[in-house]
Amino acid sequence: MVRLKRLAAALQSNPGNADVLLVSHPQDVRYLTGFTGSNAALVVPLLTSVGRKASLRPILFTDGRYIEQARQQTKHAGVIIAQGPVLREACAWMLEHGFRHCAFDAEHTTVATLDLLRRSIPAKQRRGFFQAVPPIVAGLREVKDAGEITRLRAAAALGCRLFEELLTFIEPGKPELEIAAHLEFAARMAGAEAMSFETIVAGGARSALPHGHATEQRLPRRGFVVLDFGVMLSGYCSDMTRTVHLGPATTVERDAYDAVLAAQLAAAASVLPGVACEQVDEAARGVLRQANLADWFTHSTGHGVGLEIHEGPRIAAHQRQKLEAGMVVTVEPGVYLPGRFGIRIEDMVLVTRKGPEILTLSTKAWIEL
Amino acid sequence: MVRLKRLAAALQSNPGNADVLLVSHPQDVRYLTGFTGSNAALVVPLLTSVGRKASLRPILFTDGRYIEQARQQTKHAGVIIAQGPVLREACAWMLEHGFRHCAFDAEHTTVATLDLLRRSIPAKQRRGFFQAVPPIVAGLREVKDAGEITRLRAAAALGCRLFEELLTFIEPGKPELEIAAHLEFAARMAGAEAMSFETIVAGGARSALPHGHATEQRLPRRGFVVLDFGVMLSGYCSDMTRTVHLGPATTVERDAYDAVLAAQLAAAASVLPGVACEQVDEAARGVLRQANLADWFTHSTGHGVGLEIHEGPRIAAHQRQKLEAGMVVTVEPGVYLPGRFGIRIEDMVLVTRKGPEILTLSTKAWIEL
Repeated sequence: MVRLKRLAAALQSNPGNADVLLVSHPQDVRYLTGFTGSNAALVVPLLTSVGRKASLRPILFTDGRYIEQARQQTKHAGVIIAQGPVLREACAWMLEHGFRHCAFDAEHTTVATLDLLRRSIPAKQRRGFFQAVPPIVAGLREVKDAGEITRLRAAAALGCRLFEELLTFIEPGKPELEIAAHLEFAARMAGAEAMSFETIVAGGARSALPHGHATEQRLPRRGFVVLDFGVMLSGYCSDMTRTVHLGPATTVERDAYDAVLAAQLAAAASVLPGVACEQVDEAARGVLRQANLADWFTHSTGHGVGLEIHEGPRIAAHQRQKLEAGMVVTVEPGVYLPGRFGIRIEDMVLVTRKGPEILTLSTKAWIEL
Repeated sequence: MVRLKRLAAALQSNPGNADVLLVSHPQDVRYLTGFTGSNAALVVPLLTSVGRKASLRPILFTDGRYIEQARQQTKHAGVIIAQGPVLREACAWMLEHGFRHCAFDAEHTTVATLDLLRRSIPAKQRRGFFQAVPPIVAGLREVKDAGEITRLRAAAALGCRLFEELLTFIEPGKPELEIAAHLEFAARMAGAEAMSFETIVAGGARSALPHGHATEQRLPRRGFVVLDFGVMLSGYCSDMTRTVHLGPATTVERDAYDAVLAAQLAAAASVLPGVACEQVDEAARGVLRQANLADWFTHSTGHGVGLEIHEGPRIAAHQRQKLEAGMVVTVEPGVYLPGRFGIRIEDMVLVTRKGPEILTLSTKAWIEL
């Protein structure tokens, strides 16, 4: 209920005269009701001058595949099993209950879906019925509550245990895919529902691909291996990257590693409530600039993480949004020298009033295998 | 190039006066260019009266993370590494090259994205610049070419080999998640990039959940286990379901299995070029109606499969679309008796002029473990 109340408060500060909110992004529906099915529309009556409407409960529409699951999982909402498309039935319900202005999330609604929604409303009521709003539920989800932090902490901790195990698999000549397979097996056996994204195991020159998914290629005798992976545990995602070195490193490699690590530590240390996301990004970028490596840091510094692997806020240049206590963000600078090598180091960091709390406790010290 | 030519032909039959097509759905971009990165926009100049424009190559816009990967993978298109949002740079390029009407896929473009696109065009040229079109590339992708069929065949065959191995893992008392973990490990070791969806291992009463993802629950001593899984191999998805029984079955269970199997065989046999999708659905539903089980068949009969696990065509009631040679669809009727048990049997079927070719060769005979 707390989440629905926060939602109502967030909507009141929104311009427009919507008397009902339509939520269809699966993770938003899950956040508000607990329902995890793939096909759902949640209709949330808003506080309005018409007392009757405000007293209506939210209604979750799903389809026949989820009859049992919806009954078991859904909290704070009634459930209707739609016979046709869920959005069409949601529209019929809104009309039947006298709603006239429906807010929808412009970032999670396609142009085709909006067209379907509009065609579900009689022409004479259609004008102004649907009102695009920013992703309000996604906004709420940026600040995690105690239960979510517990889950994110558990997911991050599992990632760290898996990394320890991973170190025992890594050796020259093994295919990257085999390393990934062992990691993912251990993750599943430990209770993960899934990996939170396609595992990256990128050895040698492939480490210079920031998104080098594990391939049949074998790990080199000498060179970096970038390991970037995450688990999904009780719905919440972890995300971590470590870069280890096989065999002895050159001075150039070692210096680059030290620079990335210094950048990561500087950025993580800057994670505080009230600090703008662009400042965290700049903290990392500044260190790499001093090391003449900034040109090879070709992506942003991080992102929020929760029910989805990529959530707000974005930790990037020009992002003025301020961090708030309860946000969980990744801090993951990297450098990529095409054809040569790449290095990335990534932690999950919880924003607290007492300072940054690193959730990813695996060592970031130089590891040579 | 064949795909780009088919695209040009498909667009000519589309009303509207677009002189350029914007493609941003990742699998559509991959289909047309081979590029597999997560952030891309492809601009395809169309044949128009202005000869100069038609001679322009398609251009792929991506970001700095993909410099190397884009160079290695992209065919039939130039590559531009965008400094800002790829869609904004794509718009700037279109303006610079004199395009005036851009078609975009309404099913894969959000309302917020369309707003961003519009704001990237000067106000005086904005009117009519963007034209919503149906998912044309997705339409092309429904009919697979020889290379795609080879890949889908390989993915389906790997699924079947994994099923054989899976049978050796299954025993009463084992947690569903452990079965899934073994399956997924074997899949990765065999070269799969990923599972094509979250593995379903649903034992006992949980088999009545059509989407019963593997949980910590242990398999029962007696009862059904629904196994629904797929691998992604060279980008292409497999999808298969088998239902096995632990211990001796009741007559009701055995009769229900036989009915689902008869429904599956009838539907698969009806898969022919020129047959409407609703007829395939009805072939399955009719058999279950005769067995008084149609009320428990709570989902549609199947879907296309390819680069994505769910593609067109939809094999469902009221779907008048006709099957064409080269389509690959699933045929997967099931019955679900809440609180009791569920059964589903699913094959991938290739539509050919000579008749249905079953790609999923694992037995569908009764298996009692």
